[in-house]
Amino acid sequence: MEESINSAYSQEINENGEIIRPRRFRNVPSESNMDDPFHDRDAIITQIGSSDDLNLLQSVRRRVEMKKDKVQVGSLNVLSAKFESLDYENCENYLLLDEERKKGFKFLVRKNIARWFVFLLIGMCTALVACIINISIEELSEIKYAKLSSYVDEYVTQGSLYIPYFYWVLFNVVPVGIGSFLVAYLEPIAAGSGIPQVKCYLNGINIPRVVRIKTLFVKSVGVICSVVGGLAGGKEGPMIHSGAVIAAGISQGKSTTFGKDFGVFKYFREDHEKRDFVSGGAAAGVAAAFGAPVGGVLFSLEEGTSFWNQSLTWKTFFASIVSTFTLNLVLSAYHGAPGNLTYPGLFNLGEFESFTYKIYEIPLFIIMGAIGGLLGAFWNHINYKITVFRMRYVRPRWLKVIEACLVAAVSATAGFLLMYLINDCRPRGQDPTKFPTQLYCTDGQYNVLASIWFQTPEASVRSFFHDPPNTHNPGSLAAFVAVYFFLACWTFGLASSNGLFIPTLLTGAAWGRLISIGVFYIFPDADIVHPGKYALVGAAAQLGGVVRMTISLTVILMECTGNITFALPLIIVVITAKWTGDFFNEGIYDTLIQLAGVPLLPWEPPPVVNNMYASEVMSHPVVTLKCVENVGHIVELLKLTTYNGFPVVDPPLTDQNEVTTYGRIRGLILRSQLIVILQKKIFNETHDYWDDIGPSLFRDQYPRYPTINEISIEDSEKPYSIDLRPFMNPSPYTVLHSTSLPRVFRLFRGLGLRHLPIVNDTNEVIGMVTRKDLARYRVWKHQGQMGVEELLISKDL
Amino acid sequence: MEESINSAYSQEINENGEIIRPRRFRNVPSESNMDDPFHDRDAIITQIGSSDDLNLLQSVRRRVEMKKDKVQVGSLNVLSAKFESLDYENCENYLLLDEERKKGFKFLVRKNIARWFVFLLIGMCTALVACIINISIEELSEIKYAKLSSYVDEYVTQGSLYIPYFYWVLFNVVPVGIGSFLVAYLEPIAAGSGIPQVKCYLNGINIPRVVRIKTLFVKSVGVICSVVGGLAGGKEGPMIHSGAVIAAGISQGKSTTFGKDFGVFKYFREDHEKRDFVSGGAAAGVAAAFGAPVGGVLFSLEEGTSFWNQSLTWKTFFASIVSTFTLNLVLSAYHGAPGNLTYPGLFNLGEFESFTYKIYEIPLFIIMGAIGGLLGAFWNHINYKITVFRMRYVRPRWLKVIEACLVAAVSATAGFLLMYLINDCRPRGQDPTKFPTQLYCTDGQYNVLASIWFQTPEASVRSFFHDPPNTHNPGSLAAFVAVYFFLACWTFGLASSNGLFIPTLLTGAAWGRLISIGVFYIFPDADIVHPGKYALVGAAAQLGGVVRMTISLTVILMECTGNITFALPLIIVVITAKWTGDFFNEGIYDTLIQLAGVPLLPWEPPPVVNNMYASEVMSHPVVTLKCVENVGHIVELLKLTTYNGFPVVDPPLTDQNEVTTYGRIRGLILRSQLIVILQKKIFNETHDYWDDIGPSLFRDQYPRYPTINEISIEDSEKPYSIDLRPFMNPSPYTVLHSTSLPRVFRLFRGLGLRHLPIVNDTNEVIGMVTRKDLARYRVWKHQGQMGVEELLISKDL
Repeated sequence: MEESINSAYSQEINENGEIIRPRRFRNVPSESNMDDPFHDRDAIITQIGSSDDLNLLQSVRRRVEMKKDKVQVGSLNVLSAKFESLDYENCENYLLLDEERKKGFKFLVRKNIARWFVFLLIGMCTALVACIINISIEELSEIKYAKLSSYVDEYVTQGSLYIPYFYWVLFNVVPVGIGSFLVAYLEPIAAGSGIPQVKCYLNGINIPRVVRIKTLFVKSVGVICSVVGGLAGGKEGPMIHSGAVIAAGISQGKSTTFGKDFGVFKYFREDHEKRDFVSGGAAAGVAAAFGAPVGGVLFSLEEGTSFWNQSLTWKTFFASIVSTFTLNLVLSAYHGAPGNLTYPGLFNLGEFESFTYKIYEIPLFIIMGAIGGLLGAFWNHINYKITVFRMRYVRPRWLKVIEACLVAAVSATAGFLLMYLINDCRPRGQDPTKFPTQLYCTDGQYNVLASIWFQTPEASVRSFFHDPPNTHNPGSLAAFVAVYFFLACWTFGLASSNGLFIPTLLTGAAWGRLISIGVFYIFPDADIVHPGKYALVGAAAQLGGVVRMTISLTVILMECTGNITFALPLIIVVITAKWTGDFFNEGIYDTLIQLAGVPLLPWEPPPVVNNMYASEVMSHPVVTLKCVENVGHIVELLKLTTYNGFPVVDPPLTDQNEVTTYGRIRGLILRSQLIVILQKKIFNETHDYWDDIGPSLFRDQYPRYPTINEISIEDSEKPYSIDLRPFMNPSPYTVLHSTSLPRVFRLFRGLGLRHLPIVNDTNEVIGMVTRKDLARYRVWKHQGQMGVEELLISKDL
Repeated sequence: MEESINSAYSQEINENGEIIRPRRFRNVPSESNMDDPFHDRDAIITQIGSSDDLNLLQSVRRRVEMKKDKVQVGSLNVLSAKFESLDYENCENYLLLDEERKKGFKFLVRKNIARWFVFLLIGMCTALVACIINISIEELSEIKYAKLSSYVDEYVTQGSLYIPYFYWVLFNVVPVGIGSFLVAYLEPIAAGSGIPQVKCYLNGINIPRVVRIKTLFVKSVGVICSVVGGLAGGKEGPMIHSGAVIAAGISQGKSTTFGKDFGVFKYFREDHEKRDFVSGGAAAGVAAAFGAPVGGVLFSLEEGTSFWNQSLTWKTFFASIVSTFTLNLVLSAYHGAPGNLTYPGLFNLGEFESFTYKIYEIPLFIIMGAIGGLLGAFWNHINYKITVFRMRYVRPRWLKVIEACLVAAVSATAGFLLMYLINDCRPRGQDPTKFPTQLYCTDGQYNVLASIWFQTPEASVRSFFHDPPNTHNPGSLAAFVAVYFFLACWTFGLASSNGLFIPTLLTGAAWGRLISIGVFYIFPDADIVHPGKYALVGAAAQLGGVVRMTISLTVILMECTGNITFALPLIIVVITAKWTGDFFNEGIYDTLIQLAGVPLLPWEPPPVVNNMYASEVMSHPVVTLKCVENVGHIVELLKLTTYNGFPVVDPPLTDQNEVTTYGRIRGLILRSQLIVILQKKIFNETHDYWDDIGPSLFRDQYPRYPTINEISIEDSEKPYSIDLRPFMNPSPYTVLHSTSLPRVFRLFRGLGLRHLPIVNDTNEVIGMVTRKDLARYRVWKHQGQMGVEELLISKDL
């Protein structure tokens, strides 16, 4: 029996009793090509066996490779090489110690007060931007739909309905065209909801231009245009993104877009600080979008923040509260009830009276959750296909604008056809309809579908939630669901700023109401079948099925309907929808993130990889620098490589027997730091550099440092040397080459690392692990099999 | 200029260009003895200067030392040596790899399903226990107060009021005596609310016996006794503690108290897993106590969980929901509305109608928050003094029981005097009073104070929240506040199981109502002064001032009053109360934790210690083991030392020039692992040990391993050797001796470490850092000065 432990173990111990772990899984020839479910994506998937057969039997590990040289877009299992990580670590170099020593506690207290102040500003400004968006949309939509409604009723008597139709198309296409033009030509990153981008940013990935003022401008104008233009999109996602941009802008006290530096809050110019503020901004955005402060904090926690702590959460909460407060203050004045913060019109989706529900309704709610999960998964799948199509074929900017205009025209057409073909009439006056359009109805009645279409999607959600029973007939609801489902699906991902919360809620609310009619038909004497309740459940189910959030979504719905008694059913519905949907595919945001090849780190390390080691994961050989390094060499190195972090090492030791090629680790220095040092010419041979050295040496140009090619180093300076020790991070976290992958992962995830040098037994640097090296390993499920796949990192994506 | 950088920097670089950081702050003679605010606690506080004068000017660092040999109880700045950490790390030893290899993915899926199932059970059982507590208290209290009320009205006519008074004392003392006897003699850890203990556990400290079944039993019976006995205590804290115990019990599938092992969920028998379950249990406890599922999750996040991740949060949320659901189901049946889960009686504190509030009320709310903060800080201070007194003088068990009985008697007396002296009469029938006691009132009227006292504190909170305006007169409210404030303060910390939520809410609600009367007096025509609203604000302020929670408290209050419109004012109030209170002292839970000397790790590393290094913090010399180690040596070592983790090293190298005394790190092994290996006699010389080795080798006896003295090793076995490599953690996180303290702290906090070996430049172990070494450094504030203090670790506490 002793043999068995030894034989399983002996591979790892050499004759000196040292533990050597072979690099087991790389470069092992593939043992079988399993049938490839992703064959349409030009990827070859190779099953990787271990040297150990047992392993092969129980869990499958496979590697993704490409058939052709170039990665074709649309792969869900390829990472892009272009994304850089943010740095969540404090670099405890000489500059920081010096600052701490000189400024002491009082500075810390001041900094903390400034931090609270910035969160206050973030909350206020986010709310103000949200107010501008809200009020603009409301005013413009009112003009548009008032005109359209009156045109319809004017021309229907003349039999020339093509005229209002023409106007409708015009009123849709013009704003959408403007918005789409801005997005496509000015700032493509402003397209869509912005939530995936914010999520990536909070995960620690620097998405270029995502928090610029220009993005904010395009996003705000774009979302007004697209909602006024009648697209099946909402303003909530863009508001969250706006909050994030505002947070980044205010906290840095400068704007790259305007080339303006206010010189304030310089001490916040670090990835570390900026990310905390962005997390507050995103929460403030949710709070402003839905009037849901607690939901905002939970959103920030659930969707984003990896490195959460209590003091950050308080500040985030504070920003959310300030944001809700400011929003309510402005909107209550706008609605004509200034100062009345409990004005019911402030609830986005309308305030619900308390519902009652009975225990025997729970199974029905579960079924509705499952339906929502199915529909959501289906929606995600279609949207994924559309997105891939767009990535491949809708590439020129003008084509994107055309597509957006086309969708706008189709939206008008679909709406027009629905209200033209389905003559669903109700008596007037009973329902809170702003522009009751008569169309073919008799006098004193109005067309129900027209009243749904002639308002913003948000107002339609409110209608479905609060209209009295029997407002809609099942046929018109079913037609509406079918049309809107696909419309929303086609709209999301256009080159225009809009989110999917509201259209998804609208689809769900519509089928929820449909189900309530069905239930009422089967149990005509059930007194509890309130259609609004079922609309809410349907909306929650649909949204849960699409985005797969649970806690924050439930709380947001609770907060924006003002209804707490209904928390339990909502949670059940949302969880059921999530579980059902997860069975088929990922949430839409995650799908989009995967499509973009963003190396997002999941919450947990991949399972069953405890026998993979850092030595297999790391990049090597690694380019190192000496503590005192030659200027010419550094310039050369920066030009030749694209690495962002360089371990600083002692010169390799020369022993009697052998020359080690590795140096012992002394610290870690970033590319940006080297560039600033070169730019400021902080060379040992120049004697006047000390004036430039202060705690904000590296902060001054944050976050956009020049490239190495923009730095001019004279040939005469190249023999000079630089002492890197005062600037480098003198004690980066390192791990041994024999550390397991989950352990490395937890270190990255728990501490927000960007670079992790891998050392050998004598602390010599033999490799480097970055986020991309870790994000490559991902759980993979297919047809009941599960495994870990090793993604390809591509420069083409 | 170059000189200046060199001179500041030169201390750290020796002639070979190596960076050597001196151990600067230890052993530096004190430069001045500042006046000591803690002189009554027998501690000497030494101000520690750095070698660098600048540092001294800006921030003060000081060390706590003791005047006498023995630490006297009541010190807030001494840590106890007796607390051990939990281990949140995965030990990737041969056993784990083997299990993973053999069981693969399917096992992981099964384990995950089992995990969800356990969370389901936790939610259900917690709710059931809560129901039992709830219903017992309600039934017993009803009998008690019905009797008392009738006695009063019977004997008042006879002029012999001493008889009901006597009964009242009796009805108080007997149950309290029973509860207190159980706590004092059976399980002292069951005293108090249990929240501080749960908080410590979730922070990663193994508080002995805190999650035993016996504790659950004593806690449940104890809380019923103390609430029925009329103590100024609540049942909410104990319910949270119960949830934690239930979670630990169910997830481990065995009970030490009953000596029963069900043999299920063996794979959850690790600190890591158990703590996750406990966090779910605490959340389920909050959910059951307040009917607040979201509040439960937030409580768990805010008060406890350090190593939070999304999948744990979902499960926690699930447990909370199940708990609320089960509770509502049982209680709705109990209240005679089975299946009606929206039955308003399910709201603990009664459902509020929507309030309106105007913007000009906000300043008033802020003032009330500040009052709450002041009163809370005052309450905390008195309770701290009382606790210290108890720790010093109320030590024998019988004395504790006597004290509890005394408080019970005093409670009855205070209540009796209040209702006897203040003749506050109201007409009957108007208010929802269960036992209207007439006392000296005219016929058709009842005594208001009697109706407050003749019910449970929770019911009194409901009364203050929901009684119509003008139910109470200001005099009786003021008297009640004064009496109850001190009563609650005296009660909390007795040897009986009760929490402080409800009494604190009650005090706050009373003064809130008092303020509403004042406001109404000043602005008689303000139509918005609803006394219930002000009672709620006062309750939130008082509780915020005492416990200093913000987010979870707000959400809990929202959820248990069913009122969402009032979120904003509540948050403002709670934050104001927290800030005001924090100016004076810490929250009551933190104060208690500090008194017990628990090495709780705060959320953030102490500030301004970037120039302290691991070499100064670590314990050394460190006791190491070789990879293959002699049995006798191990036994000897375990007997001689009390360390819980031992680095496993290569034998020290012998070079030509010198003999290093340190060995190169190979792994880390725990005391418990060594003991199991010795117990199972897994020696290289015995050939039949392999049968015992399986993944559950160490799990079988978790969490209570024998001590080394219980292991019998024959003398003939002592020359045998043990190969530690298959069992040890082969790649523990390590850091260089030159790593800064905040960096070490973040590693501990972010990854939940228990031991961190400190290595030198060539990976040889030179020291070890544990939780206590880090928890010693704490922010210290006094009279406008701030600094970091270095606590003493004492074995006497």
